[in-house]
Amino acid sequence: MATFALASWATNLTYANLTAPVIDAAVKSIYNWAGCAIGGFTQDAPHIALNTTVAAGFGGPATSSILGMNGTAGDEGNGLAFADAQVAAFINGIASHVDDYDDTHLATVIHPSGVVASALLAVAEARSRTSREEGGGGGGGPVSGPEFLTAFVAGVEAELHLGRSVFPEHYDVGWHITSTTGSIGAAVAVGKLLGLDTARAQHAIGIASTQVVGMQAFFGSMTKSFHVGRATQSGLLAALLAREGYTSSLTALEDRYGWLHVVSTRENASAEFALLGGTWEIEANTFKPYPCGIVMHPAIDGAIQINNETLAQGKAISLDSVKAIDLRVNPEVLVLTGQTDPQTGLAGKFSIYHAAAVGLLYGQATPAQFTDAVVLNSTVVGLRKLVNVTTDAGVAEDAAYVNVTFSDGSTTSKYVEHAIGSLANPLTVDELKTKFMDQVTKQIGKARAEKAYAAFTNIGNMTDVGKVRTLF
Amino acid sequence: MATFALASWATNLTYANLTAPVIDAAVKSIYNWAGCAIGGFTQDAPHIALNTTVAAGFGGPATSSILGMNGTAGDEGNGLAFADAQVAAFINGIASHVDDYDDTHLATVIHPSGVVASALLAVAEARSRTSREEGGGGGGGPVSGPEFLTAFVAGVEAELHLGRSVFPEHYDVGWHITSTTGSIGAAVAVGKLLGLDTARAQHAIGIASTQVVGMQAFFGSMTKSFHVGRATQSGLLAALLAREGYTSSLTALEDRYGWLHVVSTRENASAEFALLGGTWEIEANTFKPYPCGIVMHPAIDGAIQINNETLAQGKAISLDSVKAIDLRVNPEVLVLTGQTDPQTGLAGKFSIYHAAAVGLLYGQATPAQFTDAVVLNSTVVGLRKLVNVTTDAGVAEDAAYVNVTFSDGSTTSKYVEHAIGSLANPLTVDELKTKFMDQVTKQIGKARAEKAYAAFTNIGNMTDVGKVRTLF
Repeated sequence: MATFALASWATNLTYANLTAPVIDAAVKSIYNWAGCAIGGFTQDAPHIALNTTVAAGFGGPATSSILGMNGTAGDEGNGLAFADAQVAAFINGIASHVDDYDDTHLATVIHPSGVVASALLAVAEARSRTSREEGGGGGGGPVSGPEFLTAFVAGVEAELHLGRSVFPEHYDVGWHITSTTGSIGAAVAVGKLLGLDTARAQHAIGIASTQVVGMQAFFGSMTKSFHVGRATQSGLLAALLAREGYTSSLTALEDRYGWLHVVSTRENASAEFALLGGTWEIEANTFKPYPCGIVMHPAIDGAIQINNETLAQGKAISLDSVKAIDLRVNPEVLVLTGQTDPQTGLAGKFSIYHAAAVGLLYGQATPAQFTDAVVLNSTVVGLRKLVNVTTDAGVAEDAAYVNVTFSDGSTTSKYVEHAIGSLANPLTVDELKTKFMDQVTKQIGKARAEKAYAAFTNIGNMTDVGKVRTLF
Repeated sequence: MATFALASWATNLTYANLTAPVIDAAVKSIYNWAGCAIGGFTQDAPHIALNTTVAAGFGGPATSSILGMNGTAGDEGNGLAFADAQVAAFINGIASHVDDYDDTHLATVIHPSGVVASALLAVAEARSRTSREEGGGGGGGPVSGPEFLTAFVAGVEAELHLGRSVFPEHYDVGWHITSTTGSIGAAVAVGKLLGLDTARAQHAIGIASTQVVGMQAFFGSMTKSFHVGRATQSGLLAALLAREGYTSSLTALEDRYGWLHVVSTRENASAEFALLGGTWEIEANTFKPYPCGIVMHPAIDGAIQINNETLAQGKAISLDSVKAIDLRVNPEVLVLTGQTDPQTGLAGKFSIYHAAAVGLLYGQATPAQFTDAVVLNSTVVGLRKLVNVTTDAGVAEDAAYVNVTFSDGSTTSKYVEHAIGSLANPLTVDELKTKFMDQVTKQIGKARAEKAYAAFTNIGNMTDVGKVRTLF
């Protein structure tokens, strides 16, 4: 009984069950998510989504923060709550994913934190306020750091074990596995915060599971990040409805016409859920060094290395100086990121041609290399036409061969065995801080970014996580 | 290019394109939907959904009506607007489907009106108000009857042609086709009201299509009707986002990793969409005489006939007088409605055993026969244990053989060739009015029910459909 197994494990999970590496992975996942949600708010997608919601009048009294909004602790008019929990969860979910800069569990290609953390923070903030006033999807008093981390881990483990049980079949047919598992993870996490009993947690899983959001057709458009925002809302709504007695099915996942069978041709959820609490998948979560499809990262590494080496030799890199850029990569690279002629920054995030070109030309791949302007820059356009991609199933997903042939006939080759940011070559704590600071500083300045970093890295020690936004 | 074909057809559709039978079918579909939305509001599902939303503070200023709420035109405090358009659409969607009493396009098993009409009315009401005040997801002034009907037909045709292109494969795997096609239909309909150009309509279809709500695992629970409510919101949100420039994909449906391929193993959308405007699927819409799974309707007809005939002979029908109830039916009956021991009214709607028992015992199958109390009634429980079901692929979906063996050894047999309410044996206008009045009277009384009937049957002649709720 997979649904029962997942619900009862989550219901019974306590902070004492979490090992030190699990807590460390959870905190990193959360502050990496927060940095992405703040930095990503500069994109059009979260702004359009927010403006649409506001213009339509779809939103109740503000209880929860939109992380990238530029209020300060002095803005006491709204106490830094900018939206109701449902809207805040939606916008933070979109913003945290829109740069494709978040996190990755490579064994399932799930970006696990966005949906779960966006839902939890919105609820924690609403609960923080309900100790002072009415409304807000809360009830139950402030959420402590340990409670928050426990709920977060429950949601992430739900996503990742569920993902493992259907990967790769579920992914290969075209589902965006981050959001299809995400609504269920968010329901488990919020259900944990709400203190649902096992039966209501099962109903919450059911209501979440029947809202399957996300297909790969939308990679490279604003709808990719919409998936994360909408799955966040779906899971949140599911948990709230289940708390009030809304019924779904106690066997939602394993039912002949339920999630596992409808969205996949294979599942081993019973075996996978038996591992819950034994194998902590969150320990295999990694953090992206580049804001784009993760399968391109090893090729970017190689291109950046060649940039650095070429410039160190005193040679220039330009459209004139480069003759060909040859890549040998895992076949998934062309499946997921094969756009040859992107026209927007978002599409550039799914173009191995663009990624290799900017890595070689600029020696970096930050959000600044994935803007509309750079994607349309004539030198970049010219360079990406020089990129030739050969796929080879013998090349691992975190590896790549990059060879640049220059106009003077010289060549430089790099083999990247494990991309930066992969499990075998993870970002260090310093690199994670640099990534956070880069994203947050551009939005709220360096001094407040430092405060935000301090706040989110300390989240496990807070007595009221719902106050985190007031600390920066 | 299926997405373009659908979007451009809908964008260019005008009221002048609608034939008289199409308009007649649309008006019947709309007033049948309204009756179901008003009557269905007595159920727990819409109440829990509404209370959850309100308690969580998820809802903006009221612009739109919840049809079953018992306000009168005298309640000018809120002008009969009880919720924002998103919440109203959600609750009306749930209420219109929760009794399983709505409408059916049998070739696809889609119940087409709930999602489309719930979305459109909420927007039309918001637009009616924006001529007087700000907000409400509106803009563009009042929606006339012809505009409303044109948008409704566009949405319904989108659902039904899309459904035809993937049926039965899409349904057989377990999707609740009403809501999976419904979000797209709602997006097309609302996009039409908003005046989206073809490209934005394509983006709206994309955003709607990536929100796939509804699996058959939830038949018999509150989540079945949640599917309709949530798909209504999904389509509404998709159209609003697309209007503001949110991007998805211009080829969302036919993309290798888009709707048609991800949720079905077969599609012929290009051929199907070529029929748009030529074959009006709405003319094949039918209206349910019984509030339960439609595949049980022929068996109910037979059971009711036997009840009437038995009572006319002066014989009693009781647990003592009946020995066996034998049914020979289409195999889909057990696939969809095979619950042998339902414990709730909602579950009884998906139990052929319950349906045959109440048809025989009470001589009717109205909402009153599908309450929790009747499902748990000991005579009903006893009788349904006497029901034996044999499936036979040679029996059409709208046909059934019913044989009752009485304790005195006598038998009565009925063959129902075309169930009441089927395309070959449709409800008459008088029967539709009786159905409407029964549902609406119990909620708001007979005098107001008459006014509501007059209002909705006249909807095509209104200059401002957004005022319909003020007429009763």
